[in-house]
Amino acid sequence: MSEQPAGGDLSRLRQLNAAAVLRELRGDQPLTLTELSKRTRLSRASTEDVARDLLGRGWLTEVAPASGSVGRPARRYRFNAGAGRLLGIDIGGHKALALVTDLDGDVLNQSRIEVDPELGRRERLAVLDRCVRKALAGAGVEAGQIWSTGVATTGLVDGTGKVMLSDSLPEWTGVDLGAHVRRLVPGPVRVENDCKLAALAETWRGVARYAKDVVFLLAGLRTGAGLIIDGKLHRGFANWSGEIGALPAAGWQQAPHHLHTWLETAPPGADGFERVFVAARAGDREALAAVRAYVQDLAVGASALVLTLDPQLVVIGGGFSRSADVMVEPLRRELDRWCLRTPEIRVSAFADEGVALGAVRLALDEVESTITTGLRP
Amino acid sequence: MSEQPAGGDLSRLRQLNAAAVLRELRGDQPLTLTELSKRTRLSRASTEDVARDLLGRGWLTEVAPASGSVGRPARRYRFNAGAGRLLGIDIGGHKALALVTDLDGDVLNQSRIEVDPELGRRERLAVLDRCVRKALAGAGVEAGQIWSTGVATTGLVDGTGKVMLSDSLPEWTGVDLGAHVRRLVPGPVRVENDCKLAALAETWRGVARYAKDVVFLLAGLRTGAGLIIDGKLHRGFANWSGEIGALPAAGWQQAPHHLHTWLETAPPGADGFERVFVAARAGDREALAAVRAYVQDLAVGASALVLTLDPQLVVIGGGFSRSADVMVEPLRRELDRWCLRTPEIRVSAFADEGVALGAVRLALDEVESTITTGLRP
Repeated sequence: MSEQPAGGDLSRLRQLNAAAVLRELRGDQPLTLTELSKRTRLSRASTEDVARDLLGRGWLTEVAPASGSVGRPARRYRFNAGAGRLLGIDIGGHKALALVTDLDGDVLNQSRIEVDPELGRRERLAVLDRCVRKALAGAGVEAGQIWSTGVATTGLVDGTGKVMLSDSLPEWTGVDLGAHVRRLVPGPVRVENDCKLAALAETWRGVARYAKDVVFLLAGLRTGAGLIIDGKLHRGFANWSGEIGALPAAGWQQAPHHLHTWLETAPPGADGFERVFVAARAGDREALAAVRAYVQDLAVGASALVLTLDPQLVVIGGGFSRSADVMVEPLRRELDRWCLRTPEIRVSAFADEGVALGAVRLALDEVESTITTGLRP
Repeated sequence: MSEQPAGGDLSRLRQLNAAAVLRELRGDQPLTLTELSKRTRLSRASTEDVARDLLGRGWLTEVAPASGSVGRPARRYRFNAGAGRLLGIDIGGHKALALVTDLDGDVLNQSRIEVDPELGRRERLAVLDRCVRKALAGAGVEAGQIWSTGVATTGLVDGTGKVMLSDSLPEWTGVDLGAHVRRLVPGPVRVENDCKLAALAETWRGVARYAKDVVFLLAGLRTGAGLIIDGKLHRGFANWSGEIGALPAAGWQQAPHHLHTWLETAPPGADGFERVFVAARAGDREALAAVRAYVQDLAVGASALVLTLDPQLVVIGGGFSRSADVMVEPLRRELDRWCLRTPEIRVSAFADEGVALGAVRLALDEVESTITTGLRP
């Protein structure tokens, strides 16, 4: 396995041709040169040229000819997802989560370490380091084999990977997460806000795969949003999109207080917020009222997003999405009340791993842009 | 002058080549075949082929060779904006406005008829008809010379040109504006919401020309929004984007009431809402308080849009934008209060003609898609 993707001196035209060939080969089917030439509309000669080059770089592999073919069977090629490894990291309030995947984003190892929400910057970064080492060891992968890394964090992140603002983690504003992670792994490291990456994961491999305009709602201890517009993650001019929760009128700041208040008066139990949803599911009237009040506040900001963007789909993710059975119908009723058109509502199937998966997608974006630009060493 | 653009049997490749050539010729400079070939990266032969074809169709004209050139001067070509005419219509609560333009969107004639806001559907459509006839006559253009028409209206519009919902014009919900206008002019007719088209006009020829992400605020008797995202008009899944004003928490429904209330107690005058801004400008304390209360409500919804999208630019248009000098600073202060990052604020320079200009842009989009697809007869 090569340590780093080769590249660098493809001409612009050959880069585009290579990208076209790789795009066709990202599907499930291996393809012959004839099929590739037809699909890419490149000449046979150009197709052969590109395929030879990509084979040399390890991006393609040859697979056994189709059985039952008559005469000399044509060679078939597929994308070599094993050529490199990707790393996706989610560093949040309560956990660090690291995924090591192949170039298709298929997970080879997943490591999780629970984190005390009150932990300071140094201690939290130390947990991140341990989590990454554990994931690499679990996948049997050296740091040098990681081609590209995506990092998700709460808070607003700038283009270099620095946390510009975090109001939920202690000492987190100002941390240069990009620089920190670059010390752990070679290759490019990109850092992005967790809600944005969770939205990306839903359109990549989740319940929003078919949709071009999506509002992703992170419903949990914090409330947040990530926006997919015209099939792309919407970042905004300074990468500060999706922050409607900062507006008091949107209701998100007060939303979890209804659940807190119920928890304060309820008999103690081990599983935190989960308890109020369990009690509501069991028919406890006060728990039901607390959940309803929470959803009413959540729905104000959610309606603002829906009325603004008119998305095809709203996806509910985050910790509370496990309790979607008691949340979705009340939320739909509230959206019906405020919105001109209530979009379809779906619940994330990723439990709390969507954010890290979005970080993998970010790493993969970087690799795919490498293919088309040849900028990597 | 041809009555309709020719087209129809260009092969797909030639369509793309033709589009590439026309794109280069939409600039100010006439270009030689050598220059065109270099810029489009088409072969000399293909460039000649396309240019001959486009000359025949009337899309190009030859211009006099550059003076002072040595030897036999090369022929130069430019886009023939006079080959056809476009029509842009704005049918609103208080006026009908029609623009006849060339294919560059340069206005040949502009006609306006004031409308009583209480007018019913038939009467309002009759005014629209008169306004269109007046504009055509003023430009010396027959209906048959109109290649493409854009229509702007208040309310939500579907893809066929039908008004799905209008809460501000009597009997307007359900009117098939597309079908009505198709009886007046041949060629394609596209209908769109007025706020969306005003936003489009700002990015095309207005103060938002340089920006990719723009929130356009229509500030007037009604409040509305149009969104430009990643350089394109954002329509949404059912074309119902930008409707955050429907949410009471956004403040836009109550915003104009502060101005109404002041007007009720103020000495009568002829110029409606303008009076409160005039009085505020002159330092009348109660008028200033009314404007401030209006801006405070406007800013809640505006902040929701800014926090959601993180645009580069907010553009203030609509009737009240003439009074921007008393509105913009208070608005900026309110945005500073609620938003994490206050974008630049600019005031539309279009008075109340931006909407009709956006309708022209819509008509032009149609013509340009014709160029690339050759679908027109």
